[in-house]
This record gives sequence, structure tokens and C-alpha cells, in this order.
Amino acid sequence: MRARDLLSPFPTVALDTPVIEAARLLAEQSLPGLIVVDEHGLPSSILPGSQVLRLAVPAYCQDDPALARVIDEAHADQLLRSLTARTVREAMPANPRELPVTDPDATALELAALMARTHSPLVAVVGDGRLLGAITLQKLLDRLMAA
Amino acid sequence: MRARDLLSPFPTVALDTPVIEAARLLAEQSLPGLIVVDEHGLPSSILPGSQVLRLAVPAYCQDDPALARVIDEAHADQLLRSLTARTVREAMPANPRELPVTDPDATALELAALMARTHSPLVAVVGDGRLLGAITLQKLLDRLMAA
Repeated sequence: MRARDLLSPFPTVALDTPVIEAARLLAEQSLPGLIVVDEHGLPSSILPGSQVLRLAVPAYCQDDPALARVIDEAHADQLLRSLTARTVREAMPANPRELPVTDPDATALELAALMARTHSPLVAVVGDGRLLGAITLQKLLDRLMAA
Repeated sequence: MRARDLLSPFPTVALDTPVIEAARLLAEQSLPGLIVVDEHGLPSSILPGSQVLRLAVPAYCQDDPALARVIDEAHADQLLRSLTARTVREAMPANPRELPVTDPDATALELAALMARTHSPLVAVVGDGRLLGAITLQKLLDRLMAA
């Protein structure tokens, strides 16, 4: 069982995609995260869903639960307005770590190790200089369980 | 929109649950993670799916992609055998951080901030001294998008 046998097409976003679109993709297609591609269509980052959501939270609330508490539910729509104005570029981590990106020959064990090490529910597969698709944690687990 | 309006029942595992059972729960119910409860039924940790998978990877492969590569697909079933012998206790992080646990009064903004800060696709809700349920990132996004 290699990456090439497990991968599926996966939607991508660009750095200038509005966060609201990224969030809609996540919600509508029940994705665990998003692949952000550069101008060559290659993965420049893999954003877990929780980090897309981060942009919906005003900076002054991010580290202060008390502040987030006092802003009541009537303001939930403001979260969405802030998403409209911002792009995926702003959700990118300041200190990029190892990307969960591999090639079509990766073994199941290698995929599991990569997801565990990068804390990513999603691995992008690149071969022949292009993005071939992705493998979700769910897909890998399903296949391991069925083996 | 408060946590109490968004929460749903959510399966839990205990520290001595075999990892294979935890992995099966994740796979069969398409969960983004698991709530690990203590002897009082209260959350002692929230494990993202990628960290459950971590136990399936032999220690000598975890940080060495080259080693994981040479172990070919015929050994995928060994991953599962190792899961059978181990318990959720071993998947617990060595340095526990802030838990994504809140109370029923948490606002949507507070939930978003908590998921973002703890990098968790799942928040457990505790009230009256017991676990009331959980809110997934998917559920929160769906509700925000529909607002």
C-alpha cells in the first residue's frame, strides 16, 4: 500500500483566496484542512481547519478567553465579516515547520509517521513536479483497518 | 450561539482503552479526534487523530522518514498488531498543554479562539461536573456559515 494507491483529488486554495472561501470549502466538503498552493500549483503549506478558523478570531481575543467570553453571540456574524476581508496568506504560520508533503512511493508507515510528526490530518502527494492529490487521516485509517 | 446549543454527544475512550479500539472509533465514526476521560468521566485529554496514529508507528521510524520508507507495504499489518498491544495512555502527550475544554456558556467566538489556540478540531464541553458532549470544528464552521 503506497501513497499512489491511497491518494484522491483534493481542493486547493491560493495565498490570495479570501478566508471566507477557504472556510466555506472546509465546511461544505467536510475537509480536515486545506492545501495552499503557490503560483506553480505546488503545495506551499497545509493548513489544518483550526488554523483557518484562527483568522475569524480578532487578535485581541485570541489569547484571552475572558475577552472572547464577553463578546456575545450577537457578534458571531462579525466573525464572518472579518473572514471576508482577509486572505489565506494571513493564516500562514509565522514559523513554517516540516510540511506534510510526500511522493507517490511513500509507504503506509511513512504516511502515518508524517501525519503524526507534523500533527496533520492531511498529506499532500507531489510527483513529476505537480500536485497529484492528498491522503486524509480518515482514508489512511480506513485502509489500515480494512487490511 | 453558545456551546450548549452546538454540542452533541461524543464517544469517549479511557486511558486503558486499546489503541486499536480508539483507531476503529476514529475510522468508523469519522471523528476528528477522541476525548480521553478519567475515572470520573471527565476529560483528561483531547487526542487529535494524528496522535492516535502516532502509536502505530514504531519509535525508530517516527523521526526518520528513510526508515519508514524501507519498510514496505507488506508490513502495514504490523502497524495494526502494534496498535492492539498498546493503550491510549501511551498516546498521551508528554507535556500536556491547555486542554480544549470549555463550559456550556462559551460563545462561538470563544470556541473558535480555543480551537485555534489549542490547534484542536474538537472542544469538549463540561458542566455540572460532567462531560456534556463536544463540538467539532466542522459543526462550528457549519453554524457560522449558516448564520
